[in-house]
Amino acid sequence: MKTLITNAFVLDMVGNTANIEKKDILINDNIIEKIDKCIDKDIKIDEKINAKNMLVMPGLINTHTHLAMSIFRGYKGDKKLVDWLEKAIYPVEDKLQPEDIYWNSYLSCLEMIKSGTTTCNDMYFGMNKTIEAIQDTGLRAVVGWCIKDDSIKDKIEKTREYAKKYNHDKNSKIKIYVSADAPHTCNPETMKLCVDLAKELNTGLHMHLAETMSEERKIKSRYNKRSTEYLKDLDVFDIPVVLAHGIYISDSDIELLKNIKGGISHNPVSNCRLSSGICDVVKLRKNGINIGLGTDGIGSTSTMDMFEEMKTAAYLQKVITKKPDSILPYDILKMATIDGAKVLGLEKEIGTLEPGKKADMIFIKTETIHLCPDNEICSNIVYSANGADVDSVMVDGKLIMQNRKMININEKEVMRQVKKIAKRLL
Amino acid sequence: MKTLITNAFVLDMVGNTANIEKKDILINDNIIEKIDKCIDKDIKIDEKINAKNMLVMPGLINTHTHLAMSIFRGYKGDKKLVDWLEKAIYPVEDKLQPEDIYWNSYLSCLEMIKSGTTTCNDMYFGMNKTIEAIQDTGLRAVVGWCIKDDSIKDKIEKTREYAKKYNHDKNSKIKIYVSADAPHTCNPETMKLCVDLAKELNTGLHMHLAETMSEERKIKSRYNKRSTEYLKDLDVFDIPVVLAHGIYISDSDIELLKNIKGGISHNPVSNCRLSSGICDVVKLRKNGINIGLGTDGIGSTSTMDMFEEMKTAAYLQKVITKKPDSILPYDILKMATIDGAKVLGLEKEIGTLEPGKKADMIFIKTETIHLCPDNEICSNIVYSANGADVDSVMVDGKLIMQNRKMININEKEVMRQVKKIAKRLL
Repeated sequence: MKTLITNAFVLDMVGNTANIEKKDILINDNIIEKIDKCIDKDIKIDEKINAKNMLVMPGLINTHTHLAMSIFRGYKGDKKLVDWLEKAIYPVEDKLQPEDIYWNSYLSCLEMIKSGTTTCNDMYFGMNKTIEAIQDTGLRAVVGWCIKDDSIKDKIEKTREYAKKYNHDKNSKIKIYVSADAPHTCNPETMKLCVDLAKELNTGLHMHLAETMSEERKIKSRYNKRSTEYLKDLDVFDIPVVLAHGIYISDSDIELLKNIKGGISHNPVSNCRLSSGICDVVKLRKNGINIGLGTDGIGSTSTMDMFEEMKTAAYLQKVITKKPDSILPYDILKMATIDGAKVLGLEKEIGTLEPGKKADMIFIKTETIHLCPDNEICSNIVYSANGADVDSVMVDGKLIMQNRKMININEKEVMRQVKKIAKRLL
Repeated sequence: MKTLITNAFVLDMVGNTANIEKKDILINDNIIEKIDKCIDKDIKIDEKINAKNMLVMPGLINTHTHLAMSIFRGYKGDKKLVDWLEKAIYPVEDKLQPEDIYWNSYLSCLEMIKSGTTTCNDMYFGMNKTIEAIQDTGLRAVVGWCIKDDSIKDKIEKTREYAKKYNHDKNSKIKIYVSADAPHTCNPETMKLCVDLAKELNTGLHMHLAETMSEERKIKSRYNKRSTEYLKDLDVFDIPVVLAHGIYISDSDIELLKNIKGGISHNPVSNCRLSSGICDVVKLRKNGINIGLGTDGIGSTSTMDMFEEMKTAAYLQKVITKKPDSILPYDILKMATIDGAKVLGLEKEIGTLEPGKKADMIFIKTETIHLCPDNEICSNIVYSANGADVDSVMVDGKLIMQNRKMININEKEVMRQVKKIAKRLL
């Protein structure tokens, strides 16, 4: 199946400066075959997409999510992380049924698609139902069963089972990572099991790191170490890692993180909402540590819109460094695309628009009042656009949203199901 | 002319806690006549608006803008304020023609309307053309000619002329304030002229205050005072004031500001983009100082969307105070509505939905994936919604946008005009 996209302004996200040109994109099944100024009209095309007045760029990559938490949107919010989890969330989470996890995840997936995300990295429990929702909505994802000291055996088995099912299939849009919750909820034995499992399955590890000061204090009092040291000493950095948050990272921690594979998932909205703190993105990037962006779960952030994360990431870095040029729109776009792909170990497959890569891309309407004039297109995307400007979304060569309409999905039914669950549980 | 809005969920913004109920709203010409559960169907109604699945709330109030700066969207951005103004903006501003100011202002007005703003407070030069644009788009506004040491006489005359034209007309949507640029660009003689003019015209004063550290240093070296003291000593706080930014406010300054009429316009996006700093909103509010929100000009912020200001204001306060409950969604909504009205001295006319007030309101679509479920509606509006969720906008009893379509306005022509100006000047 050959698809030809014409009349697009293509922002390919290749290289260190923005490259925006009017080009055609030829797709063969799920792979980008060619991007060029005037692709031979003699090729037999099965589907043509006219991208007039659209900017086409790689789909956004959300490097840290808890998809099934969508029913908690705004629920008992405006609390600190531990308070909120213990008083509002954990008591309800215990009651979540597999069907609840399916519909809650489904809603998060739709929200991501409608705001331009094509890949996410999810950790929670009951992930088999989340995987179903991801597959039914058409997204690409890395997923893991969140392991803690008090829930190990079943999750390790599920991780192994699903990794065997998906990780060797080159065309699978699902990839399984081992997921550990956080240093303070995973003791050295638990962490060792996770690291060994990741090595056995030849995959990576997704976990929270240095999100709050109170967690740092716990680790210090238990082990007399910083949490980053704690992980390093347990050989966690021998395997590819996605480290969510990374707020309390000292200069000595930076030395330990310099050569990790993967990277840090920066979640600025969540970190502000929970008053967790501000990740020093500029410093980490200067030290060669790779950083992607993530929304965290809807429970803590109320949004899955990566445009909000892009803006907030830029705002926070500019104001804390007191240097407006400390981070530029193209840096932010990289974090949301190719650097996010690197965080997930998927940089050879996604994150840029190049021949040979998977056809994951978004179409942004540019002919709107709030994107006019277009003096600097990257600046407009980061600072002026929002999720609602995404007109169409393609994952793996297939359009899953077109002209803001989800294809083959009944949005009202999804909302009805999630409202019913919220009514029952909250 | 009687208009009846039915089936609305009304968030009236009256009082200190959110009050959301399904109600009808009866409007007589430009005034809200009645808000009640089931308004008598026997009343002769000229226009009926069905607000099913809509939240109806007061229009947002943008307390600090430079409307004519829209052509500078993203232009040579990511610089500090003084650098950006001197190197990028001032050389081009000198070339702006009256027609340029009209179209640039027009575009900013459209962007505001499309993201739910019904009133703004603008300062710039060539304001007669900005006033035309405001009137042609249907917004309500306070406006002033920005006076500096090097441009006084003509602006004072214009201010007087237009104040006489509009300020005594109870039905005018335009109100004239005296506008002074900033402490470091207005010497004591200039400030005295401005204060005297405001007293003569029985109006207020709009100016920048304590936006950057470098300006504070200038005032200190010239007068051995802080900028707030400088204004106090020139009797500025005897008249109603809109003080934009208010970042470098000391405890002693707070004492000077405690009894001002009007308040501070907090512009979090601009302050981040320009690395200016973070206004201590929580502390100022605790001390009884009234605070509204503003976008500043598109040149520095790239957006006129007050939803972005609401989110960013909340994020910044939560993360700098380390207290997630330091500011709550309803506080933020107040800042964007009734507190903003108080900043502009318009709290008797707008800012809440109550009988006797002007019919300025916005209709927000609530049946969307990213606002589901609706556990906490104020939280959803602040953290999950964006400007594109505004379905319809009413100012002074007239719908100026319905189902996201501007009424009697050709958006494409506005974009064409602004692009032409940008091409000519940038």
